[in-house]
Parts: sequence; structure tokens; C-alpha cells
Amino acid sequence: MFVVSAPSGAGKSSLCRELIDSLPNLRQSISFATRNKREGEQDGVDYHFIRPEAFQSMIEQQQLAEWAEVHGNLYGTSLNTLTDAADAGIDLLLDIDCQGAAQLINNHQQGVFVFILPPDYAELEKRLRERGTDSEDVIQRRMKNAAQEISQAHWYDYLVVNDNFESARESLVAIITAERCRGRRTMHLLEKFNAKGEI
Amino acid sequence: MFVVSAPSGAGKSSLCRELIDSLPNLRQSISFATRNKREGEQDGVDYHFIRPEAFQSMIEQQQLAEWAEVHGNLYGTSLNTLTDAADAGIDLLLDIDCQGAAQLINNHQQGVFVFILPPDYAELEKRLRERGTDSEDVIQRRMKNAAQEISQAHWYDYLVVNDNFESARESLVAIITAERCRGRRTMHLLEKFNAKGEI
Repeated sequence: MFVVSAPSGAGKSSLCRELIDSLPNLRQSISFATRNKREGEQDGVDYHFIRPEAFQSMIEQQQLAEWAEVHGNLYGTSLNTLTDAADAGIDLLLDIDCQGAAQLINNHQQGVFVFILPPDYAELEKRLRERGTDSEDVIQRRMKNAAQEISQAHWYDYLVVNDNFESARESLVAIITAERCRGRRTMHLLEKFNAKGEI
Repeated sequence: MFVVSAPSGAGKSSLCRELIDSLPNLRQSISFATRNKREGEQDGVDYHFIRPEAFQSMIEQQQLAEWAEVHGNLYGTSLNTLTDAADAGIDLLLDIDCQGAAQLINNHQQGVFVFILPPDYAELEKRLRERGTDSEDVIQRRMKNAAQEISQAHWYDYLVVNDNFESARESLVAIITAERCRGRRTMHLLEKFNAKGEI
């Protein structure tokens, strides 16, 4: 499980899309969400859209690995999503905020935690303005949220600065490739040698 | 510091050469050795060739981060080599056996430990024979050493199978690239944000 967090405007969504497209055996985790479906969004593709009562019932029945309330809407990752992927031998990419990531750690979920940083605050603000989708109020709120998210970056396993899309993409691919070679994930490779190693 | 170990014939030397050639800021660590210089070898390039008495004196003065005796000759890495590289901000690639790697860990040297595995014993033996440089005795000794080295692979941070040179090279590049993004090595990136994060 690869968990990617970043402040809004750091380029997380585009980077995650690139990873899913370019790496084998990696799939985007689909969250549950209570907000209304937006134009162009598909249920079961962008999110599993459910009603707030259904979400509450998932919380009560402890079916969620993490969840958070953002601007009055609930978002969460179900435990089933994680176990289904694990059973299928597929790595999941979770695009979630620090709140959710911290819950995964507190719930003892094994994963690799990556934080994507913008080059600096000035560049982040510039990128948010260039999108041209947000009002001044929203930009200011996003900048405040960014400072709060970045204040949590220190406990992530990896930090990747997105000053250049291509080099950030390469770093993320490297992290996933390298983590797949981790000793604790590749111990099974030694089995055939240990049998012989006793001669 | 990246420490790479592998049984003879696993392709370690060619892979290490490729890494040094293709990655910036990575340099091969040059060991001290008491054996005679072979045809084509250069002092200070392949090894620092020194007399056994000088090596003994380095051991006594605790100037070595690791050392080992192999077939009657002494080989070792000086602490100066490690500190000079650290001071210069350069990553070192150490091509050493499990004995040496274990000493580095016991001496609390921070590093990333990578073990390169052959696909299996049959392929390893085939590669050793195809080199055509070793007698049957030497091949049998190398196979026995291989089993001993591989029995230590379980405590390495990463395992890379060299079944295909190009994909093994990619995995090693990924490991080095990823480790350079590790939170504990990139914490300084957060400084400029934390200052602002307090507003």
C-alpha cells in the first residue's frame, strides 16, 4: 500500500495518474464519499458515492481503515478495499490527506507513506492561481490547509519535491520499485536458496 | 552509503560499474588490500595496495570501518574514506562481502544494505563456468561460498535478483533514488515551510 499525501496544488493527482498508467500491478484505491457526484465523475471510478447514513453505518461497524470529514463531507477507505487488493497481490495507491494517513498508521496498517511537497509557498500559491478555478477566499483557505498538511510531512517515509514534474514522477516510480525489493517483502526469494544453503 | 553484497558470479561488479557511471553524486569506495596488484590494476583506483604490516597497524589504530581476511589476504574500508565522502556530500558505493557488511552494522554505520541474488544455484554455476577463468576446484569453492553468503541475505534491507541485467540495474538505481528521498535524509527540505507554517 502506497499512501500519497500533498497539499492541494502540489501536483499529486497528475502524478498519481501517471504512476497508475506506467507501473504494473498498481491500482488506485477508490474511496467512499458522501458528497454529490460532480459533472463527469463516475460512481465506482472516482469514488463510491454513498449517502451519509450509509457512511455512518460503515463507521459504526468499523468497516473503514481511515475516514475524514472535509468541508462537511465524509470521505473514507474501506478495510475491504485493502484486504481485497492484498489477497489479489495488487499494490494500492491511496491519495489521502494527513488525517487519513495518520489513522492508517494508528490502525497498524502496513504501508509506504510519501509526501509530495511544492517547491515553496510562493510557487504553490502561483499554481493555485493559475488553475483559475478558485476564488481568492478558497485560495487563502487552501494555503492555510497547505501549511497544516506540510506541518505533518516530517513523519512520512519519503519526501518528494515536485519542482519538476518529470523528476518528481521518476522519484515516485523509484520509491515504488525500491519498496518492492525490500527485504521483508522479498524474503520468499530466499527459500529455494536456503534449502540448498545447508549442504 | 550503499553497501552491495553478492556471491561471486551474481553480476555485482558489472552492476556497480553501471551505477557509478549512470548516477550523479555516487562514487565507488576504494578498499585497502594486502594482496599483490594484478596486471592492469592501479593503486588508488582498484584498491589502495598496502603491506600487511601497514594493514595490521590500521586495525590496531581502529582506522578501519570493516575488514576481512579472504584467502589469506586482508581487505578493508577505512573510516577516513567514509567520513571524507560524508563531508563532501557524496554517496559511497561499497562492494563488500557479508562479513564486512555485518561489521559496518555492528559498528553502527548508517547505510543501505543491498544483496544481489542470482536467479538460482544452477544459473550461478553456469555463469561461473561460462567465465572460463576458474578451475573446477575454484568453482566448487565459489559455490560453497555463495551458499554461505546467501544464508546472510535475510538481514539486508533490499534483495535484487539479477535474472536480467537491465531490470536488476533499474532496481538498484530505484533503490538509490528512493533512499535519497527518505524522510530522515530530506528533513532539511521542510525548514523553509515550517517557518511559514506557523502563521
